[in-house]
Order: sequence, then C-alpha cells, then structure tokens
Amino acid sequence: MNSKTTQLKQLLTSNKLEFLMEAHNGLSARIVEEAGFSGIWGSGLAISAACGVRDNNELSWTQVLDAVEYMSDATTIPILLDADTGFGNFNNVRRLVKKLEQIEVAGMCIEDKLFPKTNSFINGEQQPLADPAEFAGKIKAAKDTQVDADFCVVARVEALIAGWGISEALHRANIYRDAGADAILIHSKVSTADQVLAFKSEWCHDCPVVIVPTMYHQTPTSVFQDAGFSIAIWANQLMRTSITALQRAANQIFESQSIAEIEQQIVPVKEVFRLQNTAELQAAEKQYLPASDTETLSVACDNGIAARQMS
Amino acid sequence: MNSKTTQLKQLLTSNKLEFLMEAHNGLSARIVEEAGFSGIWGSGLAISAACGVRDNNELSWTQVLDAVEYMSDATTIPILLDADTGFGNFNNVRRLVKKLEQIEVAGMCIEDKLFPKTNSFINGEQQPLADPAEFAGKIKAAKDTQVDADFCVVARVEALIAGWGISEALHRANIYRDAGADAILIHSKVSTADQVLAFKSEWCHDCPVVIVPTMYHQTPTSVFQDAGFSIAIWANQLMRTSITALQRAANQIFESQSIAEIEQQIVPVKEVFRLQNTAELQAAEKQYLPASDTETLSVACDNGIAARQMS
Amino acid sequence: MNSKTTQLKQLLTSNKLEFLMEAHNGLSARIVEEAGFSGIWGSGLAISAACGVRDNNELSWTQVLDAVEYMSDATTIPILLDADTGFGNFNNVRRLVKKLEQIEVAGMCIEDKLFPKTNSFINGEQQPLADPAEFAGKIKAAKDTQVDADFCVVARVEALIAGWGISEALHRANIYRDAGADAILIHSKVSTADQVLAFKSEWCHDCPVVIVPTMYHQTPTSVFQDAGFSIAIWANQLMRTSITALQRAANQIFESQSIAEIEQQIVPVKEVFRLQNTAELQAAEKQYLPASDTETLSVACDNGIAARQMS
Amino acid sequence: MNSKTTQLKQLLTSNKLEFLMEAHNGLSARIVEEAGFSGIWGSGLAISAACGVRDNNELSWTQVLDAVEYMSDATTIPILLDADTGFGNFNNVRRLVKKLEQIEVAGMCIEDKLFPKTNSFINGEQQPLADPAEFAGKIKAAKDTQVDADFCVVARVEALIAGWGISEALHRANIYRDAGADAILIHSKVSTADQVLAFKSEWCHDCPVVIVPTMYHQTPTSVFQDAGFSIAIWANQLMRTSITALQRAANQIFESQSIAEIEQQIVPVKEVFRLQNTAELQAAEKQYLPASDTETLSVACDNGIAARQMS
Repeated sequence: MNSKTTQLKQLLTSNKLEFLMEAHNGLSARIVEEAGFSGIWGSGLAISAACGVRDNNELSWTQVLDAVEYMSDATTIPILLDADTGFGNFNNVRRLVKKLEQIEVAGMCIEDKLFPKTNSFINGEQQPLADPAEFAGKIKAAKDTQVDADFCVVARVEALIAGWGISEALHRANIYRDAGADAILIHSKVSTADQVLAFKSEWCHDCPVVIVPTMYHQTPTSVFQDAGFSIAIWANQLMRTSITALQRAANQIFESQSIAEIEQQIVPVKEVFRLQNTAELQAAEKQYLPASDTETLSVACDNGIAARQMS
Repeated sequence: MNSKTTQLKQLLTSNKLEFLMEAHNGLSARIVEEAGFSGIWGSGLAISAACGVRDNNELSWTQVLDAVEYMSDATTIPILLDADTGFGNFNNVRRLVKKLEQIEVAGMCIEDKLFPKTNSFINGEQQPLADPAEFAGKIKAAKDTQVDADFCVVARVEALIAGWGISEALHRANIYRDAGADAILIHSKVSTADQVLAFKSEWCHDCPVVIVPTMYHQTPTSVFQDAGFSIAIWANQLMRTSITALQRAANQIFESQSIAEIEQQIVPVKEVFRLQNTAELQAAEKQYLPASDTETLSVACDNGIAARQMS
Repeated sequence: MNSKTTQLKQLLTSNKLEFLMEAHNGLSARIVEEAGFSGIWGSGLAISAACGVRDNNELSWTQVLDAVEYMSDATTIPILLDADTGFGNFNNVRRLVKKLEQIEVAGMCIEDKLFPKTNSFINGEQQPLADPAEFAGKIKAAKDTQVDADFCVVARVEALIAGWGISEALHRANIYRDAGADAILIHSKVSTADQVLAFKSEWCHDCPVVIVPTMYHQTPTSVFQDAGFSIAIWANQLMRTSITALQRAANQIFESQSIAEIEQQIVPVKEVFRLQNTAELQAAEKQYLPASDTETLSVACDNGIAARQMS
Repeated sequence: MNSKTTQLKQLLTSNKLEFLMEAHNGLSARIVEEAGFSGIWGSGLAISAACGVRDNNELSWTQVLDAVEYMSDATTIPILLDADTGFGNFNNVRRLVKKLEQIEVAGMCIEDKLFPKTNSFINGEQQPLADPAEFAGKIKAAKDTQVDADFCVVARVEALIAGWGISEALHRANIYRDAGADAILIHSKVSTADQVLAFKSEWCHDCPVVIVPTMYHQTPTSVFQDAGFSIAIWANQLMRTSITALQRAANQIFESQSIAEIEQQIVPVKEVFRLQNTAELQAAEKQYLPASDTETLSVACDNGIAARQMS
C-alpha cells in the first residue's frame, strides 16, 4: 500500500472528484475508513466541538496534534488536517509540519486568517484576512520543512468568506500557488455553488481546487465533478450526526429512567470491542504472554477462600 | 450551587436511586448535562473507544486525565471517573487523586484487578484479581490524599466477574469499606440482576452500593430502587449510540456521494456553535476587545485592491 | 501556611524589596525553595531553553502549563509564571487563568507584545507593541476569570524595550493599572538602572512595581530597595548556571573518557533521591502496602535456581 | 549522515568501547552532542528528577515520551531511552515502540523488574524480578513491532542488583538474547567491576554487552575496553552536576541578595540564545516574513505619542 502522503497526493491529482469525510477522534476516523472513504478531513470545528471547546483556537496546537494522532493511529487512509491559520507565524508552521509528518498525517490545510481564528461561518465578513505575502511565507516555510516529498499543503482562501470578491480570491490563490501550495481550497458560505464555480472557471492552473460544500449541499455532486474540482470535503456531517443521535438517546434514557429500550436500537458492546480490534490483542496475548500467565495465582484471602487457578 | 464533589456525595447518599450517564468527551458530557442528568460516568471503555484504542490501559493515565479534563470543563455536574485499577500501585493512586481534584473531577472508581487491565466483559473468568489487602491500601492512600472531604472513592468489586462467588464479593467489599471506600460498586455480567440483588440482600452496611446494569438491562429500574441501590450507572450507551449513528451516516454519504440527504436528518451547524457556547464568546468580545479591533485594516494588496474596513 | 496566591500577593504588597528566583523545571524549583527564596519566577526563556526550543512561542501554551505544573507540584512557595503575551487574545488568557489556578500557580505576568513573541533582549527595538486597549482587555478578562481573589496578574510594560520612552511606558502602565493589574513590571535592557528608576520616580500610584535587573545587575540591591520597588526578579541565572556547569562537565567527561574525576565534584546519587523525596515513599510503602508484598515470590526459573524470598 | 537508529546500531556493534552520556531534557541533550558524544542515554532517573518526581513511574509513559521528544528534536545523535519495565506488559511495549520510532528515538532499554518500578539503587535486593518468559515476550513484541530494522532493543538484566547471582544473570541474558534483544545491559551496584567482568567472561555470544559504571566508577575505562564491553553508559552525572551547581548558585544569590557576583561566573544570556539556535530563526525571518513586517505600525496612543515606524 502506498504511504498516506502518497495516497493524499493521488487524491488531489486524480482526474475525478474525490471525497474526504470529516472525523473528529480515533473512533469516527476508523468508521470513516470502514465505510469505504479514501481520505479523512481532520476538521478543526469538529475536533474542538468533540472536546467541548470553541473553534477559536481554544485548543493549543499540541492538543490538536494529540487528537489527530489518535485518528492517524486508528486508520490506514490519509488525513488532511484542518490546521486553521497554522497556529502562529511561519515558524510555528515549521514546527507543525515536522510534528504532523512524525504522526503520519498526510497533509494540512492552512487558511489566510489571523490567530486566534473564528469559524468562517460566524460573522465571516467581519474577520480580517492575513497579509497574503505573510501567508505565502507560511506556505513556503511548510514546503521547505517537509521531509516527505508527498506531504500536502493546501492553502485555504477566505476572501469569499470575508466578502472581498472573486478577483481578490484569485489574486490570493495565485500567490499561494506560486509559494508552493499543493492545492487551493476555495471556501464559500453562500447556499449555492455559484461562487466556487465562478472561481474555478477563472482558475487556469493545473493546481487542484478543493471545496467544502457545507452551505451549498443541495448542489448535485455531478456539478462539482463536471467543473473539475479535485476534492469535495464533507466537513462536519459526522459531528452533527453524533450530536443528533446523542441528544435523542440521552433524552430518551433520562425520561424513561431505563436503558431497556435504547439497548434494542444500538450496536452491542461487542461491536465496540470489534472497532477497538480486541481480536488482535487476544491473538497477540497467545503469542507474547507465557503460558504460565494463564495460571496466575491470586493471593489467598484470610477468610479461607482458597486461591483458585485462572484456567 | 454545591461543589461537584458535594453533589456526587449527595447522589451516593440520597434515599432514592440515582443515575449516572456515560460520556466520553467534552461534547457528550455537555449533552448528558443538558438532558437533565445529575452526574456523569467517565467510562474507561467509552473514553478509550472514542480515542480509537483498546480498554487495556493503552491510554496512559495522563491521557485519561486529558480526556476527563475536557469533560469536567464542559459541565457543572459531577463526574465519577472509571479509573480502572488506579493505573499502578497506591503511589500512582495518590498522584491520580491529586490531579483529579485539580481538574474538579468529583470522584473515582477503582477496581480490584491487575494493571494492565482487560475489560470485564472479555474473558472475565480468566482475569486475576488483586490481593484485597493491596487494593485496600490503594483506597486508604486515596482517602488520605484527597484534600476535599467530599471527593468520593468508589471500590469496584470484580469477584462476581471473575467467578469467585457472592461470599468472596462480600468479603472483599467489607475490606474495602473498612479501608474507607465511600461506596461499593458490585459488578456482574450475567443477564439478570440475581447476582447483584443477592449481594445487596447480604450487605448489611450503610455504605452505598452502585450497580452497572449493562448486561441485565431488562430488569425494571424499580427493582433497583426497591432493593436500595444507591446509583445505577448507564455505562456505555452513548458510545454505542454514537457508533450506530456514525456507521449509518458514513455509509449513507459514501454510497450516495452526497450530503443532501443527511443534511435533512441532522442538527444544523449552528447547533454545534450553540453547544460550544459561541454566544458567550461573542458577548465577551464586546466586553474585552477594543472598539478599534472592529476596524482592523488588512494590509493592502499590490494589485490595487484597497484594504477595506472590517466595520 | 497561607495559600500560594496569598503568599504572592503578600510579596507584591510588602513594604520591603522581595525576590523571585528563576526556575525552569520541578528540580530547579525545589532547589530554589530549599535555598530559602519566598517565590519563583517561571521564566519563559528558561523553560523554553530547558526544553531545547526558542523563546518564540515554540512551546504551545499547554506545553508551558505542563512544565509549570511540575514546578508547582514540587514546591510550596508561590510561582509567578512568565506567560508571554497570554498566548493569544483575551479569550486565550481566560483559559490560561482557569488552568493556572487549577495547578496552583499563584500568578502570571503578561507582556504587551504580539503573538508569537520574541525575547525582549533580541532586537527589542524592532518588536511591535500591542495596542494598549487590547492589552488592557486581556488584563480585565484575566481578573474577571480568576476565582481566587489573591491570584495575581502582573502587567509587563515593554515600551522601554521597544524604545518608546518613559512617557509611553507610564501611559501604558496607567492603562494596565486601571484595567486591574495587581502590579506593573517595567522592563529595561540598558546596563544601568536609570530607566526603571526614572519610571518609578514618576509612578505615583500604590500599584507595586516589579523589575528584572538582568542587564543592570551591577546596581546594588539597596538602590532598588530605596527606590521602593516591590519585587526584583532574578530571571535566568539558574538556567545559565546549569548551562555553564553542564558544558564543563560534559567536556571533561568526554575528554577523559572517565567519570572518576567528576564523581568527586558532584553530589552523590543519594542526594538525587533526597530531592525526589524518596524517604516519604518508603514510609508510605510501609503504611499502604500489605506485609505480604515484602514476601513476593518471583517465578522460578527452569535452570533450577529456586525462587527466593524477597524478605 | 546515517539515521539515528543506524548510528546507535553501529555504536552497539563497533569493535571498540563506546560511550553514552546521560541527558534529561532538550538543553542537556544538545550540550552532550556539542561536547562530542556519539549518543545519549535518556535516563529514567534523571528525567524524573528533572521533573521533580520520583523514579517510580510517577511520570506516565506519555510524559516520559514528551521529555524524550524534546531531547530528540534538539539533537542529531541517537538516544537510547531508559524505558524502565516498558510501562506495563508486552502490549504497552508495542505502543511504546511505535511512538519512539515516530519521534526518532533510536532505541530503548527495558529491564526485568515489575511495574511500577523502583530505582535499582534503592533496596535492590528486595525488588522482585519479572518472570523471564514474560519479559522475553516483551522483547519479542518490541522486535516484531519496530518498522525500522535498526531500532535497538536493549534488555537490562537486574539479577545482580536483586542478589540472584551470576548464573541467574546469564540464564536470563540468554533468554533475552534468544528473544531478539540487540544487546544485554548487565547492571551491578557494587563498587568494583568484578560482577560485570565475571558476567562478561562467561558470556560467549556476540550479542553486545552494555554496562553502567555508576557505582564502580573508579575502574579505569581501559578495563572495560579490554574486557570487550560494547558501551559504557555515564548514567546520571549531568543531572548530579546540575544539582550541585544549582544548589551552590541558589544559595549564593539568596545569601547575597544580589546577582552581581554570579553574573561573572556564568555564561551570558546570548549563550542561551546560541544554544536555542536563535540565529537560524533570524535568518528564516528574512526568508519567510514579508518586508512589510519590519514596518509594522503600532496603534497610536491617545496621549499624542505618535505611532513610530519599527524599521
């Protein structure tokens, strides 16, 4: 199997539309892989929401790393990490790239906003953008730092979110491409695909373009395919699925003061064990534990109950 | 409002059956509180599953602390942490108690198995138990370490899980109570409540008894109430709810190559923001950010697009 | 004994000059306390240097917390943490204060520079300063967040470092005092005390003034006492002592290919054990470990060597 | 340059006696490399002492990883980590190896004691040893887990420490070698080299033998060379050097209430900057920061002091 970085590079450069599915912890990442997806979006919104904090860099960058490390350990498909603004300046980006490569995260997406960031769907027009030259420096620094040639740096353009228009978006995208970005993510929060389609029709480079159709989810996927986009990111639907299900279940259990009903609706405990790959450990115990360990004696109790053999 | 430790102490000592609902991260903890529950079970199984690892102390004890710290920060109701065996000997337990008090976790439950542990529902009969005198030393050390008088130490008796019978369970429970345990958790994995009811009928102390009816979930809750149990822990249902929903959604999105359908079934993005308490931050920005920050100038671009005011 | 926060508050408000000594890990913090000092300066420069990284926010704010948590756990005297710019905006500062209180750090000092910061002794004149209104918002947010009334927020004025002059320094100090700062740290990098003395002579408030005489170390301490400064911080001398000694010893051992000589010059291994408080653990083992644990049998080996009692 | 793992493998298999020098944080690791050493001993005693905790697994295994990650990031020579007992059973060892490889630690040494461990120089005779078959399973699991063929697993034999004699030590060493250990570390705490020399004279395999001459430091190094040992580890001398120097300096500053004297005896602040590689960052700023950033305008203050250019 190709390395995770090569897999992500191939998704970015393939001739057809590919998909990344959001995950926010090791469990959801594994479920995404089992569903058949070729790659994972390590969503900043979803990771922060899972932790119970805001998508405003309330998590330190090393706390984000901790979360994505579990995701990477739990899967064999590539993860593109939503790395916000890079968590500081070009120097912070350099450290980030080194650490991401170590934990086998295949790429990162950084956005041209200021630290600490605010989610793009919250008062986007009022959010200041980064100086594009400064942001280009981050991209260059990231590309110069990576050791694995296939590690991917995706530059997210927030000009449309901030209301600056298509020409500014194109202007910035060009700068970021020149700086070495492996792909451009053009973000939009209007409810149609008009903005991203307009951007794409003006984009005359072979540098791949990535989209996040959260707000324009009613646009048929074929439209994105036909327009030549590289990757569509389903950016937060599993987080929202989890919230929907958890709220319903918690309310039901609270009201009924019983789990008898919910037990019929959910996977059994052994499905949790399967997802944790318990079977592998049981096989490994046979391989690495001495036979004598299955005969461990517990210390005898003073009330006369004899220590018994544990099979 | 009472401190979290006092709240948990009151749940343990109240005259009626109380409930703790499992949570495994900051988000699920907040949902549990919003549903109306009075307390949270910080499940070792669910926390490890969420991280994508096994319930065999694959997480270090400080990684467990990191997880439960997010849960504690996100809620105002008490958390009883499933602290496995205490992650080592009495000295490790002492450090654990100090750290749990700092992050405002109201209590911990430790079990009389050996480190590294295996989940009680996996080959329980083959799992060796701790020397009860050694385990009692952990309880004493925990009680001597805590600074807050209401911090709760629950001793989980695994004798029934290991197939040692009621008298051994009672024998151990007595030793743990004498050592200072605030409550006994009697664990059973048979599909009826017979074992725990038998234990309770023989237990003649006022030391509260806690149960985990995962396997005997068909027993009506009124039976537990009538038998005088202190707390019933719904130990892993939200984790399993999440898995069920995530698998279904991931498969649906993968098959349809679209989020159009799922978007109709799940909470909107703004519900994520609400759970993250975005409103509080927006109010605080008005209070703590200078007015001038709403007029931040972005650096002008060299293609003549003027910097615009961000009002 | 007073709480650590109250101890620090008293140092700030006492009538005589007090001293904080730099430490950078749990060990150096304990040595500072044993030497007799009343408080510790958790130096950003020294903590980052100890970790082998730069004083440019290469450590995440949670990595800084990890370092200072060891220091706090190892000591009973108060720590004033050098918290750089607060690691972001007012919201990051709020999270920081909450976490510092949990790990019993008595106060923090924040400086009016921009994130990521550069050490004040490196090209200070070229470093931009924060908008004082924005910085005042951080101070207000910190004071509104703290739960313990005695937690101390020290505002570090970098105007002299940046070459803006005394009147700007006073202007900013006034704003920070009005915002609620418990003390002003006036920083200077010239080789005499002239700047800080000039500042102090113009400062007509009872808000305490703290200094860091690294560059003007030849000024007699009595001058600081007479001028009415509250605290002098010895900010990095132990870090530099450690470097000096380690370089010398490493070179000596490398050259001689022997430890015979160095062993005569350094404390014995048992002094390490004493600093780690091994005696307390040995006493605790007697209290909390069952007697049977001193008779543990090791598994017999198949070559006929009998397992022996461990007395 | 060879990878760190290959470097360590070569040290273990070279024809002459090699040396590993203890370090305990990023700074001391860099000083060891600058002194000329070919490799670093990541001492469990020294790392725990630096953190202010005991050498009894008071640090979680991930906290040890955090410490050694700083050391690895700060150096280009290989680190052999003192990994105690492996922090659990074979499964914990597998996770450890994966994580060590990710942070480019070249090898680990595990010892045949029980978790939680006690330092070998504290009541060693009373410490139980691991079942050699169980310990061999850890070694096998480690070797099967490593991805890099040159990652080194050193098996530390504690039989002499525990007073079990040479034949037991040889018996265990043989089992560990058969299990795949890349080297045997034979530990002794008597004040002469007699024990380790006796062991070595009986050891008829080409599997390298490593020693730790802390207690028999007066033995000339040539004796170790002539006996054919592979590596001598100077295991804690830099930690003890640091303690000696810090205690002296802290006392001197406390007594004199001045840093005037100490400033003459220690490296200047700019040596701290050099060790942090500040020069590299300054060069990188020229490369990656836009020129405009050197003209940043600070917000004007309301007292009429004009914002000035930061050139």
